[in-house]
Amino acid sequence: MITVPHSLLAAQIRAVFLAWGMRPGPVETAVELMVEADLRGIDSHGVGMLPTYDQRRRDGKIDPLAEVRTLRDGPVLTLVDAGHGIGHPAARFAMERACDKAAAAGLGVSVVVHSNHFGAAGVYSTIAAGRGLVGFACTGTTQRSVVPTGAREPRFSTNPIAFAASPAEGDPFSLDMATSTVAVGKVNIARRAGKPLPEGWAVRPDGLPETDAAAAFNAKPKRLTPLGGNRTLGSHKGYGLAMVVEILASVLGGANVGGVDLATGEPDRFIEVGHFFLALDPAFFNDRFAGDLGSLMAELRATPPTDPDRPVLVPGDPEHEARRERLRAGIPMTETLFEEVRAVAGRSDAPFLLEQACSAAC
Amino acid sequence: MITVPHSLLAAQIRAVFLAWGMRPGPVETAVELMVEADLRGIDSHGVGMLPTYDQRRRDGKIDPLAEVRTLRDGPVLTLVDAGHGIGHPAARFAMERACDKAAAAGLGVSVVVHSNHFGAAGVYSTIAAGRGLVGFACTGTTQRSVVPTGAREPRFSTNPIAFAASPAEGDPFSLDMATSTVAVGKVNIARRAGKPLPEGWAVRPDGLPETDAAAAFNAKPKRLTPLGGNRTLGSHKGYGLAMVVEILASVLGGANVGGVDLATGEPDRFIEVGHFFLALDPAFFNDRFAGDLGSLMAELRATPPTDPDRPVLVPGDPEHEARRERLRAGIPMTETLFEEVRAVAGRSDAPFLLEQACSAAC
Repeated sequence: MITVPHSLLAAQIRAVFLAWGMRPGPVETAVELMVEADLRGIDSHGVGMLPTYDQRRRDGKIDPLAEVRTLRDGPVLTLVDAGHGIGHPAARFAMERACDKAAAAGLGVSVVVHSNHFGAAGVYSTIAAGRGLVGFACTGTTQRSVVPTGAREPRFSTNPIAFAASPAEGDPFSLDMATSTVAVGKVNIARRAGKPLPEGWAVRPDGLPETDAAAAFNAKPKRLTPLGGNRTLGSHKGYGLAMVVEILASVLGGANVGGVDLATGEPDRFIEVGHFFLALDPAFFNDRFAGDLGSLMAELRATPPTDPDRPVLVPGDPEHEARRERLRAGIPMTETLFEEVRAVAGRSDAPFLLEQACSAAC
Repeated sequence: MITVPHSLLAAQIRAVFLAWGMRPGPVETAVELMVEADLRGIDSHGVGMLPTYDQRRRDGKIDPLAEVRTLRDGPVLTLVDAGHGIGHPAARFAMERACDKAAAAGLGVSVVVHSNHFGAAGVYSTIAAGRGLVGFACTGTTQRSVVPTGAREPRFSTNPIAFAASPAEGDPFSLDMATSTVAVGKVNIARRAGKPLPEGWAVRPDGLPETDAAAAFNAKPKRLTPLGGNRTLGSHKGYGLAMVVEILASVLGGANVGGVDLATGEPDRFIEVGHFFLALDPAFFNDRFAGDLGSLMAELRATPPTDPDRPVLVPGDPEHEARRERLRAGIPMTETLFEEVRAVAGRSDAPFLLEQACSAAC
């Protein structure tokens, strides 16, 4: 592991994006939100995505010169066009617009079309929470890796949802979850460790559990389970939630589903991911909302735990703890990722600033 | 089993509610929505709740004379007071108001306070779907039966969510799910059958799986798991979803959480359940929405199944099928429930109309 100060990581990502020709405004948004994902410990959705973004740029699937545009603007609804750029600038713009509407009218929803991977869903829901609002975000994806209950083939990806709200004091409630049982990254960790998968993470084409981590990871297509794992434990509910995400994030704006155009059954020239954002002002209903939410969170954290050394947590607690630790001690990167970022910088004609982080370790 | 025509069941419930002194308008709403739950096969949330409602009425926890009132009315938000009546009239009023706002401004949210059990969440989300809107509903509850991940004691109930939208042709997408792995009713079915519970449905105070169905059902308090079943299979996600439901349905309006006032830690005089409803007009974003949704549903149903005799379903399919069958053949009731309804009618000074259904069987 190499540990990188968050400001240095930001400088590295910024240098790459500027070298791609992206405008300074979108660059700052994408840098901030990617580093924020890494600070929260969501390693799969921060700088870890940079090599994928670079590959898509070189494939012509991401347009670095994209401009975010408002396609339609109503009293509480906004339709935003990401212009086939990296998803973060359009997504933040859309969530801020939903918050503006909520601040004025109590409620706002934005849908983004012609977009791309937007990083971690939770960095958008917490924008609303930071403004005293209740925030919700979800997104479609580009791959098919999650199998509907009873099916042989995947139709969705891990289709994440995020929800956040701030109590009167302390860290916000922040749920940021895949609607699959686990993300692909967890299967890969088991594969690298040579461990079997728990029954319920992945299935074989016959629907029986796949416990061979390498087989599950290398399967084309992958076959992860919806949350619940199997029918007995409610995977039809996780499947239903994944479909809700597709309806809100993809169908509502006419985006692709799992990388495929519903009309043609084929991929398009661009990735065509859609996102959905909602903000709601609790003050309309209850001026004690933030205090009541704090009481609920406190009650949950005070619930007697089964293991005295593992107190009951509230969604967001692990991320808040990771953030404090990583702000202080830096962001750990595997050597593999470190070298991948070096290669991205090289291909992009950008300086490799991370070199400074490893004078001792490398 | 005794089979009852839906019109006769409606007449029976109507007779009981009128005998309680409820006004004709609220009576018709509650009757229609309770019978609708039974028609959809959601047996736990239709007439099966009538004995509980009667008990609460006699305990002074339900006010039959309640009037539904609008407490606050904004451009897109509405706060509704159920007046401690049975939940259905206030809940339908609130969902219709959210739909009216969505039809006018694109989006609407209603919160209900001072309410009670409202039946099946899915009968509200499909009101929006029937008006060409996307609908979402969720509700708090009155009991504590679901254990947060890593905790010894329950803090929530089965906290259901429902989401619906109509395709251009055919039945709507309709997800209506508890955020727990299973509902209490499923544990009771296993108990009656003398079967062990699958690992992951319920836990013991030490957090280990409880597979003794009788022990799980009779435990005070019950300890069901959040969707996911255990930490390895993602129960922290089901726990997070349950908390989202509490924030929207309970904290937003200042209602109780799991029957307990957050400020005092005690129950109040009334049940104090809250509900949350959202409606959204897809036409703002995409005039092809209904067609695209139909394409997505068709693609999912056409996914090759693991078992050729069990085609892949879309959320709502089992309920639509049950509805067609029960409209034709009637609604099955256990003899236990049949006798419980007879007792309710007797205590309410209402005629026992269901007698007609069993001239042969009883």
